[in-house]
Amino acid sequence: MYQLLKTEGRAKRGRLTTVHGVIETPVFMNVATAAAIKGGLGADDLMEIRTQVALCNTYHLHVRPGDEVVRKLGGLHSFMKWDRPILTDSGGFQVFSLADLRKIKEEGVTFKSHVDGARIFMGPEESMQIQSNLASTIAMAFDECPSSVAEYDYVKASVERTTRWLIRCRNKMAELNAREDTINKAQLLFGINQGGIYDDIRTDHAKQIAELELDGYAVGGLAVGETHEQMYHILDVTVPYLPVSKPVYLMGVGTPQNIIEAVDRGVDFFDCVYPSRNGRHGNLYTGRGTLHIRRAAYETDERPIEEGCGCPVCRKGYSRAYIRHLLKADEALGLRFCVMHNLWFYNDLMQQIRDALDRGEFSAFKRRKLDKLASENA
Amino acid sequence: MYQLLKTEGRAKRGRLTTVHGVIETPVFMNVATAAAIKGGLGADDLMEIRTQVALCNTYHLHVRPGDEVVRKLGGLHSFMKWDRPILTDSGGFQVFSLADLRKIKEEGVTFKSHVDGARIFMGPEESMQIQSNLASTIAMAFDECPSSVAEYDYVKASVERTTRWLIRCRNKMAELNAREDTINKAQLLFGINQGGIYDDIRTDHAKQIAELELDGYAVGGLAVGETHEQMYHILDVTVPYLPVSKPVYLMGVGTPQNIIEAVDRGVDFFDCVYPSRNGRHGNLYTGRGTLHIRRAAYETDERPIEEGCGCPVCRKGYSRAYIRHLLKADEALGLRFCVMHNLWFYNDLMQQIRDALDRGEFSAFKRRKLDKLASENA
Repeated sequence: MYQLLKTEGRAKRGRLTTVHGVIETPVFMNVATAAAIKGGLGADDLMEIRTQVALCNTYHLHVRPGDEVVRKLGGLHSFMKWDRPILTDSGGFQVFSLADLRKIKEEGVTFKSHVDGARIFMGPEESMQIQSNLASTIAMAFDECPSSVAEYDYVKASVERTTRWLIRCRNKMAELNAREDTINKAQLLFGINQGGIYDDIRTDHAKQIAELELDGYAVGGLAVGETHEQMYHILDVTVPYLPVSKPVYLMGVGTPQNIIEAVDRGVDFFDCVYPSRNGRHGNLYTGRGTLHIRRAAYETDERPIEEGCGCPVCRKGYSRAYIRHLLKADEALGLRFCVMHNLWFYNDLMQQIRDALDRGEFSAFKRRKLDKLASENA
Repeated sequence: MYQLLKTEGRAKRGRLTTVHGVIETPVFMNVATAAAIKGGLGADDLMEIRTQVALCNTYHLHVRPGDEVVRKLGGLHSFMKWDRPILTDSGGFQVFSLADLRKIKEEGVTFKSHVDGARIFMGPEESMQIQSNLASTIAMAFDECPSSVAEYDYVKASVERTTRWLIRCRNKMAELNAREDTINKAQLLFGINQGGIYDDIRTDHAKQIAELELDGYAVGGLAVGETHEQMYHILDVTVPYLPVSKPVYLMGVGTPQNIIEAVDRGVDFFDCVYPSRNGRHGNLYTGRGTLHIRRAAYETDERPIEEGCGCPVCRKGYSRAYIRHLLKADEALGLRFCVMHNLWFYNDLMQQIRDALDRGEFSAFKRRKLDKLASENA
């Protein structure tokens, strides 16, 4: 179901065909944590900004409204009115970053809900069950994401457990997909490579999970505090051990620059809260660097955020002055406009990357694009 | 420019032709205080929910971003990208309800900005100048809106000053509309009837301002604490003294029931924050009363807010369960959906009222509609 259409160096131009439609890669998934994009974007807006994949968070949806509720309503696609692919994370990352008082055992993790303090247990089987209830297109394996400053021995033991958890995830998903009453019986499973910044743990783990013949592979545990150079290095040493015939997903990354560098290192899938979070703070992406729309300089600026931008906000001619005013007046419309523009920027960047790969000109595109992005102030 | 198309009893079916297009009355104006509808609706959304007139607030826009800024950007229409009619209030109501430390003199009012505490002076000339800078379709005269519990003598003196202010407004607008560099030289002026709950002050004032041959007349100072019956009574005694050949605007009113009763008493224009404010609190209008979407009963309810509703949210099939979840998860999308539905409900109610008047069946429509609206819980 994953076709490798073209390569340039290690960069891949791929196509993943799913029950919810085709995903052209490299792709940036738009983060819809609680089954909605922050800033007030609905499924129809996602169509308009050319989103290919929405990413929803298992942990958040398990806690509220509850995956059983979503299941009763026919799964996430029916719930959100979004019929294109959805990826759900495993809940692991949130368990380790958001929840209080977690306790890790071989079986899984006990933690307290950040909403109501309720005690929750989640292990590989629970995560798979929840994601099956959510009926996403792609489920992620349940893993531990060790801290970026974790010691070698801790990371090694953690990764070994993550591998055992991955096998349990695979078995549980096979069982769930075979059930009569499962909403999406063709749910895909991506495994997650971990190993912190330790080359040998990363590569050993990559080799091990590559043998499990999963539907895709993620590199997790990056963009959690290490430098960009460390991240690129880990990709350099790890990705070659993941099957080239399967999509590769770099979790939680990143800036436009990070994405271009990671594509160059063989990554297909990305997700990150940057475009929506930065949008909500009025930091807007343009081809010539970031535009800080709250600055006084834009008070009477009639231009769109970026001239020639095809996003719905720029296309309709809403001015920098109006958007600045909306943010300063705390109008929700300002957040909506900024998030819409930024997500379009990312989605469009991926289109440009795919086009460059199609033309066999990615390497030249990369140089040119990184130069432009480096020039601050649009 | 105002055509009285049809009457039924005192109810009027009218049409006001403006430089920004035709307004079919009775009409409900959608409140866009700071040049945006709260809840994240843009001008394109207003088109979709069939808004005829947007109402912006002079006081808010004067304070932020400043009417000079809006003027530099070509006026409110260009600023908001909304090319249909806009009515601006005079700032008077906000001066008397929001601002601190106000001091009223014959010249006008000195008050402190609620944003930064800056001392501001506003009188009839200032209000007209600001509204001319904003370049709205319809400007409102600068008036004092006395408290609903104000004594007879205070109200009488206040209304006399409001009449003097009205004449100054008319003169100032004539001067502004004649200027070469005025954005909208065809700006209309509506005068405002005041008088609290005192019949004789109301009627005397109505007679006086009727003689000024303004473009329209508003009844102000209602829905500020008096009972519905008092409000209907004031309309009963006042509206007959306003010219039937001019549009009549009941400011800040109200519930669907209030609107239907007021149409029956000869009112053409309405505005109210109820639909957007109630929407943001999850209280949704339906033909069978209010639906409180946050209730647990809707947790797994797959139905739209109202079956058969033509609003963008119901039409696209977003479920009560999803909208409830969005509100509970503090997702901006929930507010957007609720406001959109409620404004559509109001806009659609006005369409039904106009249709009933066109058919000569308003009286039967009124009875039927009020009965249905009285049945709580959709």
